[in-house]
Amino acid sequence: MPSEREKYDRSKQASLTVGIIGLGAMGSGMAARLLAAGHLVQGYDINPIAIEHLVQKGGIHAASPSDAACNADVLILMVHNAAQIDNVLFGDNNTLCALRENSVIWIASTVSAEYVIELEQRVSEHQILLVDGPVSGGVTGANSGDLTVIAGGKVAAMEACSFAMQACATQVFHVGGVGAGATIKMINQLLVAAHVALTAEALALGTRAGVNLELLIKVITNSAGNSRIFEKRASRMAAKDYALHTTVNTLLKDLNIALLAAEELGVRTPLCSAAQQAFARAAEAGLGEASDTTLLSTYE
Amino acid sequence: MPSEREKYDRSKQASLTVGIIGLGAMGSGMAARLLAAGHLVQGYDINPIAIEHLVQKGGIHAASPSDAACNADVLILMVHNAAQIDNVLFGDNNTLCALRENSVIWIASTVSAEYVIELEQRVSEHQILLVDGPVSGGVTGANSGDLTVIAGGKVAAMEACSFAMQACATQVFHVGGVGAGATIKMINQLLVAAHVALTAEALALGTRAGVNLELLIKVITNSAGNSRIFEKRASRMAAKDYALHTTVNTLLKDLNIALLAAEELGVRTPLCSAAQQAFARAAEAGLGEASDTTLLSTYE
Repeated sequence: MPSEREKYDRSKQASLTVGIIGLGAMGSGMAARLLAAGHLVQGYDINPIAIEHLVQKGGIHAASPSDAACNADVLILMVHNAAQIDNVLFGDNNTLCALRENSVIWIASTVSAEYVIELEQRVSEHQILLVDGPVSGGVTGANSGDLTVIAGGKVAAMEACSFAMQACATQVFHVGGVGAGATIKMINQLLVAAHVALTAEALALGTRAGVNLELLIKVITNSAGNSRIFEKRASRMAAKDYALHTTVNTLLKDLNIALLAAEELGVRTPLCSAAQQAFARAAEAGLGEASDTTLLSTYE
Repeated sequence: MPSEREKYDRSKQASLTVGIIGLGAMGSGMAARLLAAGHLVQGYDINPIAIEHLVQKGGIHAASPSDAACNADVLILMVHNAAQIDNVLFGDNNTLCALRENSVIWIASTVSAEYVIELEQRVSEHQILLVDGPVSGGVTGANSGDLTVIAGGKVAAMEACSFAMQACATQVFHVGGVGAGATIKMINQLLVAAHVALTAEALALGTRAGVNLELLIKVITNSAGNSRIFEKRASRMAAKDYALHTTVNTLLKDLNIALLAAEELGVRTPLCSAAQQAFARAAEAGLGEASDTTLLSTYE
């Protein structure tokens, strides 16, 4: 068994093996950054075209989730939700058993704190480490290696995947044990979604009141009412720019996770609930897989 | 009658006469900046102590609102609401008649667009100009001369009070005719109030979920969920710092103006409505005149 010192040195090695399951917009961006940093990347996705794209960039084709896990120092899961994580790790494919002892699973998806806390117990029985490390920064951040990781986990788990995080992110916050990452990400997403809905409200009011939207946006971004989301979304919403960054369904899922947690914790979240209704209304209108910038159209 | 050129030159003169009615936290800060810029400032407030403070700084004691207006190039109204503006200008004191022709009234209070549009018509019958110029930046900004003015008005009116705005503000946005300033300020305040309520929701959730609030605040301020209000209020809320900057009642008033306008314009504003309920709840709990940072206590 390696000493603490050797473990630390291992994380400084140039080339390690990273398995990644889930090669969507976020996962493929992260995989490309890991390849660019000189690591071996073995990728799996249910969509074979996504694996092909990875191979073209120098990645290794994994025929199954357990192939992606085989010999990996870090296994990154960037799938849609907890059910998919469960299916990958414990389903027919039994990916967990393909992982060697003391390797680490980095859950990069946004899931509930409750789920990752239970997951850490389940994988620790197999001597596997877990980092609850959801990311912020979107597809742009994933492609540029400019993500923020909000990570919960034991120090040993954090050290074991630090090289992978450094390849994908410019900011890594270690916020506590497993569960703390998911909780803080959940709160960040609650604010993101609510700010998208508020941006739509502000623009809908401005439009109806007949003010010049360009001036409105310029003033707000320079005043106390500004938010990072207003700054990014307001001009795109006003211009009906529906290029896909974040979908209505993604933010609706994030709001549902937050509302469930709030209910369980006994916290009132009236603005979060109002935002959830605004996004649910947009999804019902057929905009679920459209850009969140389409939300404004539901106010018109 | 002076030519356009003379009018412009006049605004460059070192010392002009400014009347200011309403010497509360905002008004007294602005008066001090006008004095520091070398102007004559004649101030009135229903509270004689506020006038005394102005005199100590070098201002002129106005015994009545019309005394403040007498010989003024600009008359600034920084009172609580439209009813007070109406009472000052058209009430027993008849301040409007004390103003000379071609002087300008700068409405620095946050009032409705509807009100200032009607007001411009009423004062124009007396050959008085009007600027609808609510300010952003709070007491800190008023004291440091670092306000933002969101101004609506005719070009001649803007020119006539530009020297006064330059003394009080670092940013002056001319956003259209009278009414546009009030509308954009209203939308800014809607966002400010909603962001205060969202900051409280986020911290209430974080507290109940047991995460380290200092880390939560650090992560959010560096992530997509950040807003200018979160950045300013979150640490103060977490530390139960109730030093008075903005009161619950001020933001409740701003939300009520926005909800009334939204209703008249036929725009749904579910998050704004939820924020109004959160602030109304705090006011009912006796926190109306307390700092808006007390809002978090109503979630506990």
